[in-house]
Amino acid sequence: MNQSTVMPNWLRQRAFLTPNRVAIFFENKKITFHELDQLATKRAKQLGSLGIVENDVVGLMMRNSLEMVVTIHALHYIGATIVLFNTRLTFKELTWQLNDAKVKVMICDDEFVQIVDHSFHTICTSEFIRLEETELNFRTQIHLNDVATIMYTSGTTGNPKGVQQTFGNHWSSAIGSMLNLGLHEQDLWLCSVPIFHISGFSILMRSIIYGIGVHLHSSFNPSRINDAIINEGITIVSVVSTMLQQILQNLGEKNYPNTFRCMLLGGGPAPKSLLLACKEKNIPVFQTYGMTETASQVVTLSPEDCFSKIGSAGKPLFPVQIKIMSNGKECAPYQEGEITIKGPNVTIGYLNRPDATDEAIKDGWLYTGDIGYLDEEGFLYVLDRRSDLIVSGGENIYPAEIEAVLLSHEAIVEAGVVGKKDERWGQVPHAFIVCQRKVSEAELFDFCQQRLAKYKVPKGFTFVSELPKNASNKLLRRKLKEKLDELC
Amino acid sequence: MNQSTVMPNWLRQRAFLTPNRVAIFFENKKITFHELDQLATKRAKQLGSLGIVENDVVGLMMRNSLEMVVTIHALHYIGATIVLFNTRLTFKELTWQLNDAKVKVMICDDEFVQIVDHSFHTICTSEFIRLEETELNFRTQIHLNDVATIMYTSGTTGNPKGVQQTFGNHWSSAIGSMLNLGLHEQDLWLCSVPIFHISGFSILMRSIIYGIGVHLHSSFNPSRINDAIINEGITIVSVVSTMLQQILQNLGEKNYPNTFRCMLLGGGPAPKSLLLACKEKNIPVFQTYGMTETASQVVTLSPEDCFSKIGSAGKPLFPVQIKIMSNGKECAPYQEGEITIKGPNVTIGYLNRPDATDEAIKDGWLYTGDIGYLDEEGFLYVLDRRSDLIVSGGENIYPAEIEAVLLSHEAIVEAGVVGKKDERWGQVPHAFIVCQRKVSEAELFDFCQQRLAKYKVPKGFTFVSELPKNASNKLLRRKLKEKLDELC
Repeated sequence: MNQSTVMPNWLRQRAFLTPNRVAIFFENKKITFHELDQLATKRAKQLGSLGIVENDVVGLMMRNSLEMVVTIHALHYIGATIVLFNTRLTFKELTWQLNDAKVKVMICDDEFVQIVDHSFHTICTSEFIRLEETELNFRTQIHLNDVATIMYTSGTTGNPKGVQQTFGNHWSSAIGSMLNLGLHEQDLWLCSVPIFHISGFSILMRSIIYGIGVHLHSSFNPSRINDAIINEGITIVSVVSTMLQQILQNLGEKNYPNTFRCMLLGGGPAPKSLLLACKEKNIPVFQTYGMTETASQVVTLSPEDCFSKIGSAGKPLFPVQIKIMSNGKECAPYQEGEITIKGPNVTIGYLNRPDATDEAIKDGWLYTGDIGYLDEEGFLYVLDRRSDLIVSGGENIYPAEIEAVLLSHEAIVEAGVVGKKDERWGQVPHAFIVCQRKVSEAELFDFCQQRLAKYKVPKGFTFVSELPKNASNKLLRRKLKEKLDELC
Repeated sequence: MNQSTVMPNWLRQRAFLTPNRVAIFFENKKITFHELDQLATKRAKQLGSLGIVENDVVGLMMRNSLEMVVTIHALHYIGATIVLFNTRLTFKELTWQLNDAKVKVMICDDEFVQIVDHSFHTICTSEFIRLEETELNFRTQIHLNDVATIMYTSGTTGNPKGVQQTFGNHWSSAIGSMLNLGLHEQDLWLCSVPIFHISGFSILMRSIIYGIGVHLHSSFNPSRINDAIINEGITIVSVVSTMLQQILQNLGEKNYPNTFRCMLLGGGPAPKSLLLACKEKNIPVFQTYGMTETASQVVTLSPEDCFSKIGSAGKPLFPVQIKIMSNGKECAPYQEGEITIKGPNVTIGYLNRPDATDEAIKDGWLYTGDIGYLDEEGFLYVLDRRSDLIVSGGENIYPAEIEAVLLSHEAIVEAGVVGKKDERWGQVPHAFIVCQRKVSEAELFDFCQQRLAKYKVPKGFTFVSELPKNASNKLLRRKLKEKLDELC
């Protein structure tokens, strides 16, 4: 055993070091690290009575809540690997992921019980309180190379892939972020992004590693966020562009106190007008770039650059290296190419998908598929959040997945999906289709709704006689986007 | 290659990320990270012309200076392992260590050239400027498991041992300290402790990892330290008790600004009266416990406890675990025993000494030989900095080493060395000896001075007819201390 990769369990250690600091603010409740540890210990013993043991794969489909935080820590006490599912998945999508991850026990909020295939051992939140506590072997140490969490991302090639995030990935992410943003004793991080996403989950990890509080919101509400920043000592908030837009609108003429020090903006390129509006109101926006495969941010603006380098995602975090590649060569400054990332927060690979892993990670470098360039000082500018990715309200939508569903309709011959600009969501999916007989939009809409999470259902359909393709017969989505622009 | 242990070279990365922040303040000069990187790059090319290449072992005997900092970073650019020698070693001591470490090239300040054995390839500071620059392969990445530095500590069993400190050890130490003390943008760490000790060296590492400045002093001067704290924005200072005593005396009626946030006090237990005097002047003293084998602090008081837990060294740093052991069992709270430490900053072992390594590190736990206890909250109280160790002006003196020298004198039959209280140095060595013929104190003094660094030479000698020993004929130094107390 290499001792350099062994650490005490993070929550246990934090509760030991600073028991009386507040860990979680949630719905008028304050939970200290000591209390959180007690709750997680109890929950672990309850989960133990379900037969969950070390190295088991346990699924989680929950809304942001204290229960969710406690359950996550409890599962890590047991030593289970947690698969975090998007709460907006359909029955079919979830079933595919449950099978792929070989989930032993599925834990979900009551409202999600119906979408879980009954052949999986399922327990819901309301049943917890009735569970007996059993004695169990607590994992008081963690190993940085062990897989802590799995999160599914839909690949461009159809089926979603389970990204394996080790404790070391989460650790490096938290440490890299701290080296960039600093760490103040009174730090308090507001989390209204979903915990099942790496954006939310990473805040939980930072909380126990740094010893700072999380102001946890069950869902996104701009006026509650502004109220918390102005009145409750929030110092850092994680947002995506569409959220920031609504927060700013809600803020109106009011201003933030000086103690608020970071609006961490992820989830893809942000409109420059939004960034300038924030600058005008002296809101320190730190643009950031990261993904599930890098366990959150890997590139972030630093405090000294947040007003002078507007539009850039910043420089890599301290342990991270970045290269722009084009045709197998490293690009010169300002030359566009594929963003590649190396560092200890890069995933060890996709679950059960050595092929996809080998394709994405070469010689330690993660090929993100995203397009960008570096300026002469090494600041990253991201041009496209993956070439074809649709980002809708902070959710990543992969066209290939929707296309696959459309193509399963007997009348449809070809399908191509691209993002359409949308005032509220940033982007929404729009489908181009080639049919062999007349089908109504309503029928297609219905068909998709039964098979896809709501946010993935195309908001519009355009019927065409053929789709643009390249020489190798590969769909050219870029051409479809141009066509969509002409239509709008 | 496990990518989770690969990082960009720390100085190169820091110079890339925050080129314009000041890295070093030294004798009215300000050197930014960009400039430091340029200087180290040039120096690396100069050292390359001496034939120094990757994995070479290079010795360093220098006083705190910009040159020393630059040379250290230059050697890490080349990929050499650095052996840092105490500038107070004698010719004989140094020669032993140079041979033990198999040093290929020795770099020293001009004043130390005479004490280096000429059979070693030696270059001194004034020769650097004349060296040609050669092109060389820069190590732009570091591997956390590689040995960065070797520092000798004299063991209780006679010969000094080379403690191997990996980049990972230094990284974990810096990160652990940051998680405890926080990291502020304006942090500035004053270093007047020697860089050849882990106390000073660790500040250099923190500087490039955190991106904060080091206020470097060539030697300890209390009035310069107070001036810097009061007028130059120092936020953190590393000291040992004897230094703090003099700093406090020099400070007189003056006070520190609120921006000064941490007096990091290491080097063994501190007198309670000193700690109370600091509390009265509102000086935030953070007692800390650590050693060469743990790459600096492993246990430190946290901000919330620095005034309420006076006398304690605090709780472990976040990645560290601690146990008190007695007769193979873990001690209960308040029960005294040997302090044992586990964590990623524990050395991988002693150079060429698998026996000593196996004796010190068992199942990942470092047996420090120090005696202490934990209170019921887990705060560590150190009773003895190693049972027999003499700490004199922050220097560790191991009795066995001095005893060995004394025993090499033909007239001496038995020798026992213990620490005597001293107003200036905290402690000074005092020798009890059994002679077979009359010898003068002056002669013994002379004899030692030729063979030991000045601070190790006993300041007094007591002639006795026999030494106290236990049943297995082992010297009982505790009894000698009692005897010394009676004599004083």
